[in-house]
Amino acid sequence: MSMSTDAQRMERIVSLCKRRGFIFQSSEIYGGLNGLWDYGPLGTELKRNVKDYWWRVMVHERDDVVGLDGAILMTRAVWKASGHEETFSDPMIDCRTCKARLRADQIAEKNGAKQCPNCGGKDLTEPRPFNLMFKTYVGATEDESSLTYLRPETAQAIFVQFKNVLDVSRKKLPFGIAQIGKAFRNEINPRNFTFRSREFEQMELEYFCRPEQGMELLEYWKEERLKFYENIGIGRDKLHVKEVPDSDRAFYSRGTYDIEYEFPFGLQELEGVAYRTDFDLTQHIKASGKSLDYFDEETKERFVPHVVEPSAGVDRTVLALICDAYAEDEAPDDKGKMETRIVLRFHPRIAPIKVAVFPLLKNKEALVAKGREVQRLLRPHMNVFYDEGGAIGRRYRRQDEIGTPFGVTIDFETLGEKGDVLRDTVTLRDRDSMKQERVKISELLQLLLTRVT
Amino acid sequence: MSMSTDAQRMERIVSLCKRRGFIFQSSEIYGGLNGLWDYGPLGTELKRNVKDYWWRVMVHERDDVVGLDGAILMTRAVWKASGHEETFSDPMIDCRTCKARLRADQIAEKNGAKQCPNCGGKDLTEPRPFNLMFKTYVGATEDESSLTYLRPETAQAIFVQFKNVLDVSRKKLPFGIAQIGKAFRNEINPRNFTFRSREFEQMELEYFCRPEQGMELLEYWKEERLKFYENIGIGRDKLHVKEVPDSDRAFYSRGTYDIEYEFPFGLQELEGVAYRTDFDLTQHIKASGKSLDYFDEETKERFVPHVVEPSAGVDRTVLALICDAYAEDEAPDDKGKMETRIVLRFHPRIAPIKVAVFPLLKNKEALVAKGREVQRLLRPHMNVFYDEGGAIGRRYRRQDEIGTPFGVTIDFETLGEKGDVLRDTVTLRDRDSMKQERVKISELLQLLLTRVT
Repeated sequence: MSMSTDAQRMERIVSLCKRRGFIFQSSEIYGGLNGLWDYGPLGTELKRNVKDYWWRVMVHERDDVVGLDGAILMTRAVWKASGHEETFSDPMIDCRTCKARLRADQIAEKNGAKQCPNCGGKDLTEPRPFNLMFKTYVGATEDESSLTYLRPETAQAIFVQFKNVLDVSRKKLPFGIAQIGKAFRNEINPRNFTFRSREFEQMELEYFCRPEQGMELLEYWKEERLKFYENIGIGRDKLHVKEVPDSDRAFYSRGTYDIEYEFPFGLQELEGVAYRTDFDLTQHIKASGKSLDYFDEETKERFVPHVVEPSAGVDRTVLALICDAYAEDEAPDDKGKMETRIVLRFHPRIAPIKVAVFPLLKNKEALVAKGREVQRLLRPHMNVFYDEGGAIGRRYRRQDEIGTPFGVTIDFETLGEKGDVLRDTVTLRDRDSMKQERVKISELLQLLLTRVT
Repeated sequence: MSMSTDAQRMERIVSLCKRRGFIFQSSEIYGGLNGLWDYGPLGTELKRNVKDYWWRVMVHERDDVVGLDGAILMTRAVWKASGHEETFSDPMIDCRTCKARLRADQIAEKNGAKQCPNCGGKDLTEPRPFNLMFKTYVGATEDESSLTYLRPETAQAIFVQFKNVLDVSRKKLPFGIAQIGKAFRNEINPRNFTFRSREFEQMELEYFCRPEQGMELLEYWKEERLKFYENIGIGRDKLHVKEVPDSDRAFYSRGTYDIEYEFPFGLQELEGVAYRTDFDLTQHIKASGKSLDYFDEETKERFVPHVVEPSAGVDRTVLALICDAYAEDEAPDDKGKMETRIVLRFHPRIAPIKVAVFPLLKNKEALVAKGREVQRLLRPHMNVFYDEGGAIGRRYRRQDEIGTPFGVTIDFETLGEKGDVLRDTVTLRDRDSMKQERVKISELLQLLLTRVT
């Protein structure tokens, strides 16, 4: 796809997200706040499904991982020890002409001279570090003693609580602590829709191990995480694994993979899988004076565990899912004329709504009653949408656009008006093939359950 | 129960929460940060279950409610319009003797004179308002133009996005918008464990209606919310409904109920159900200049909807569940001697772990293999814990203490060593009655599913 087509595609995706209630700009009626987003009804469900599936495969289906849910506000000492207070910054440059604040890597070069990409001005300040953590004050005074930051990553809560979790869970190495939660970075230039936001959600696992297991577990987790994306419907061909070279890696890391996705705006990181050695625990041991080590009952050794961290972005995953699912094809309208169809080809596992129930006609009481009965049958087991308004073709089209994988139509056959053989059967329509099959209501739930779980 | 017994009971609950990994103090290894808490492995699961059940009954099982997931950081204009910037404060008094900062309502009176409850000093400042919102700055500058607050409640995101949600969801009045998320209040004196924290999670529904429906819906939602607490296992006898008198109610509210729970530290609010009229939407219409009204297609009227708000605290609900579940009774140890048993009598629906699987002996390979088989059978459907270590009585006791409602033991009968009749059966132990029944493995999943959903 050409550059301009990619940009157009992204525009259509953003427009669909707003139009159908996936994502809105935060504080929109007040002009919005840059880099902050609210998830609408469908976006909220999609995001929930992604997080729930992550928790299921990373925590519930494993014996060796437990969860944590730490506070966003932690004491400043944590961010001193982790190195964030000193080094978590981007170089920033001001344009003295137009007053734009820019990240140093956004400065344009033209004929060897540095220029403001905004106004073309050449009167630029020297780059200086701008810390990306949001500051706040906890307590009744507002001074250095009460200063702290909104967490810029969820991982540190896991390191700080390592000993507590180890004690209560009685786990043996290797084992992991998983967490999903909000993090905040005061990005100088948020961009690419929700991709680089100032507030975002992370799904992080810190997987602790013996030092000699680190490199092997880095490979293991890279593969596990690739499987995760495939299992939620992102094709392996759209994912790239970048081995981060020594020069770009954090000094304490012995190996890092970036899992990248081909967004319409370019190849961008979805997740980092990093072998962080014992850096974080050691920093907190030094700063707190507390022991965060592990006693191996078999070898009688006491040591600081190493850690491999698969760290994924919820919002980035959601955006990748939407971009990946977005398609335009052709479908017949109610008169059989072909028209362009917008469809989100979500994997049923993560689709916000699993099935839509349509009584063929709104003003035929028996159809409506049967429709409600089918809705009640399915609802305890999956997210069901009921819609009785308008032509059936238009109703299908509305569900296609939001990625509902299945449509169930209750018609006169269902009521037995076309003979007893079809009584209590419905048509089940597949979003992608648009094919319809006749299914007994009594078999509907089981059939759908096998397809959406 | 006497005052001192209640205090002791609370102490034992707090101790259990730490010991078994429900709740830790945030940043504990650095001395902690007052009013901030981290949920450990079991607390995280308990909290997830509460939120998931709320979402299920408040959103998924209803046709008239959709979800929203708004950003924590919103523009300052929101908090000006909502009134929070001007009035969301507690009166604060300083003791000049010991420098304590106190909420005015915590000042002790002795012989008619006001005293510091900390040092007994009488040199106190006049009360002055202390705004409870945490400040921060969004963007590269740190001045009035970039100042905003961490949201002190989730509700405002719903009001601000009302029009967007209405447009995309095509709902007719009455309908609701639900949200679960973090909120922050810089409490002067956080207290009562997690009850009054500086960071907490809310589950809020804004249910929009025609003005004439407000009072009736206030009653409806009060009853619905009481059912919710009963359905997660909090007995109706421990819940009190307080009708907030005119004098204590926000000026714009026409009626408010507080749903209170008998905590060991006193009767305290779990949830407020408030009829807020059209106050919030009207404030945002005035401040933003945008229309947030509703057009009734049948009556051809255009008006600003009224709203009834059931607003529950996740952390308070979790704490109430733990307090309510905590019990001490007697149970036989492995030698049949009676000993004190600590048990959390959680409703199976919200218990962090639904079932524990125990092979009778660790060193008998066939028992362990069968145990793993049973674990694999159940795991896709519920949170299962597998434990092969130690005497069976001690293993039961550990699960009792964390509220696991069911225990499945694989023994020699299971292997068919005591005859074919009992082959492939297990014992299913009930946490509360401690009674055991013999169940076929082939029937186990269905039996458990009916009890835990």
